[in-house]
Amino acid sequence: MALIVQKYGGTSVGDTERIRNVAGRIARTRDAGNDVIVILSAMSGVTDELISMAGKIANTPDKREMDVLLATGEQTTVSLMAMTLQAMGYKARSMLGYQAEILTDSRYSKARILDIGAERIKSLIAEGHIVIVAGFQGVDASGDITTLGRGGSDTSAVAVAAALKADQCEIYTDVDGIYTADPNICGKARKLSRISYDEMLEMASLGAKVLQIRSVEFAKKYDVPLHVRSSFNEEEGTMVVHEDANMEKVVVSGVTHSKNEARITLRKVPDMPGIASRILEPVAKAGISVDMIIQNTRLSNMTDLTFTVPKPDLAAALEIEEKIAEEIGAAEVLGDENIAKISVIGVGMRSHSGVASKMFATLASENINILLISTSEIRISCVIEEKYTELAVRALHSAFELDSA
Amino acid sequence: MALIVQKYGGTSVGDTERIRNVAGRIARTRDAGNDVIVILSAMSGVTDELISMAGKIANTPDKREMDVLLATGEQTTVSLMAMTLQAMGYKARSMLGYQAEILTDSRYSKARILDIGAERIKSLIAEGHIVIVAGFQGVDASGDITTLGRGGSDTSAVAVAAALKADQCEIYTDVDGIYTADPNICGKARKLSRISYDEMLEMASLGAKVLQIRSVEFAKKYDVPLHVRSSFNEEEGTMVVHEDANMEKVVVSGVTHSKNEARITLRKVPDMPGIASRILEPVAKAGISVDMIIQNTRLSNMTDLTFTVPKPDLAAALEIEEKIAEEIGAAEVLGDENIAKISVIGVGMRSHSGVASKMFATLASENINILLISTSEIRISCVIEEKYTELAVRALHSAFELDSA
Repeated sequence: MALIVQKYGGTSVGDTERIRNVAGRIARTRDAGNDVIVILSAMSGVTDELISMAGKIANTPDKREMDVLLATGEQTTVSLMAMTLQAMGYKARSMLGYQAEILTDSRYSKARILDIGAERIKSLIAEGHIVIVAGFQGVDASGDITTLGRGGSDTSAVAVAAALKADQCEIYTDVDGIYTADPNICGKARKLSRISYDEMLEMASLGAKVLQIRSVEFAKKYDVPLHVRSSFNEEEGTMVVHEDANMEKVVVSGVTHSKNEARITLRKVPDMPGIASRILEPVAKAGISVDMIIQNTRLSNMTDLTFTVPKPDLAAALEIEEKIAEEIGAAEVLGDENIAKISVIGVGMRSHSGVASKMFATLASENINILLISTSEIRISCVIEEKYTELAVRALHSAFELDSA
Repeated sequence: MALIVQKYGGTSVGDTERIRNVAGRIARTRDAGNDVIVILSAMSGVTDELISMAGKIANTPDKREMDVLLATGEQTTVSLMAMTLQAMGYKARSMLGYQAEILTDSRYSKARILDIGAERIKSLIAEGHIVIVAGFQGVDASGDITTLGRGGSDTSAVAVAAALKADQCEIYTDVDGIYTADPNICGKARKLSRISYDEMLEMASLGAKVLQIRSVEFAKKYDVPLHVRSSFNEEEGTMVVHEDANMEKVVVSGVTHSKNEARITLRKVPDMPGIASRILEPVAKAGISVDMIIQNTRLSNMTDLTFTVPKPDLAAALEIEEKIAEEIGAAEVLGDENIAKISVIGVGMRSHSGVASKMFATLASENINILLISTSEIRISCVIEEKYTELAVRALHSAFELDSA
């Protein structure tokens, strides 16, 4: 008898009919002799509806109250799911964030889980209940409702699985698993049967959109095996697990792309100590996260500094830099939205050389100019012109022998 | 500086526009130098929508889970209201049932308030916040969400007012106050400026629909003055207060009617000790509440027994009585849905005689047959044929000199 944690996303519980389907899946897991804890998201679209309702009331609604409002979404799905399972003859019980004692800090709208008081869930499981926990929400030390940010239910699921030492954490979503590339733009993309936490972390942060990045960090830290799979069929998905020797034999596991960034360049900046911090600190202080940073020396005392920011923050960041450029005497500030970041990812890179040069050569052979480069131990990313995104992904996918037969 | 509790019903917070209007009213009360605690219902229609959603899932949804589901309604309005007030520049904070420590028993869907831990509300008030409390919901000793039944937000408001020793509890609704009769059927009905708790209790239980009966019991017990008024205008409504000498000068304060009951008669029942309990106990055990009971002796050893039950329970009660009639050898069981209960109510009855005979004479003069009679210290009720309802109300309203000029 295993303890299985299952998380179902918003599409999987989008209406009462789908809730019934998911209940059937939960019931089969239970019937197979397992203890089951289920984490649910809000019905798809509901969170956006609530945000739009609040938007009618205030331009920047108070974050504490926003979390109170948003938490109703998961409260609705967990109660409906518990009712459904009960109507099918199962013992089931819903648990909200405060009831499951999902203790977080007080950073409303992006709280972090500090601890989970698993006692109540444990005793419900011991009594034979299927426990249905509201994802995405927690409670802070004063008893206020917090939420964990977009995709936070994944983190709820992993945290619950970690706290209860679950045998497996299944993440049910509307895709079959993790692919070697986005199947929408790369027809030869293949589903991966296994991937390491580190690779998944790189993929999540680069736009694979399947798992909240924090949930993967959590899973890695607490050694929770994740199974990412579809709630609409019975196929095995992708296991996200610790790295093993087999994985290292594959040089590159996947190619990802992101169109969510924009580039800012300050030209002819006087090159003096502390200049990079002078340029970047005000952006960070405005709450804008800077990703890649490149400094090119042009002349002996002049440099160009280029960095990327999330596309929605471009206008705000440009405004900040215009002022700074004037203060420090830079020649001009350029903004560019039409860029994409293409990455190749694989733990095999640790033991294989030549990945970067192969990537550059592949892009060059397609006449794709590389604007920026950044690397990690298991990832190489190139910023290119946005219009080449699809071509670049497909070329790299072939070059690194990821294409399906 | 007074402490004012204001409760707004579902129609008053029916959409974001109305929420804004109500926020304006709350703000004016605050600007006048008062501390303000607000209790809100769910947006009108939302509770019914949630019930219908649960109905798609299970014929008899689990009551614990139903309360989790229904509690989302008030959670939505309190967060939206707090955001609205904050956007207007006021300090405001929402409190859910468990946060306001509205401790109840565990009778889901009809829980009773046991205690209110007012400390958190008190400290928020001391910090200058307007506190917005979710009505209708509480929390039991295990931390589970409970709800207080239809109209439960009234009781939430009175209980909070009692716990915090508020100077006044204002119940904002979609009617102007308490009327001498239902204005929809009695054009000459007048709004009462004052009414006693006891009269209000009789009115509430007889169909006046304005206040949950339990809220009035609470207000009487803890000496909370209630002000029932409209949220759509600025007029004074009706004060519900302790009886005073002036009230006793008026013999009858109001005439009420209810079409919500049905009558069951068992004919030719053998008259022996314990027979009434034999007939009525199984009905009570089925959870059906019996209101009026009349036993008429027909022959030396035969009796007719008549009682009333809520109309929706008639079929179930008849089924039970058919069996009993057979067992005890009664001649037949008759059911009648086409009845109405008409009542005249007034604390003045305590010191005035002749009210009953005047009521009977008035009905007789209109050729209205009285089917059943019951009385309390301050009320006389007659069951009549339903078709005479409006005529009876108007005739009694005139006879007891309640008509507006």
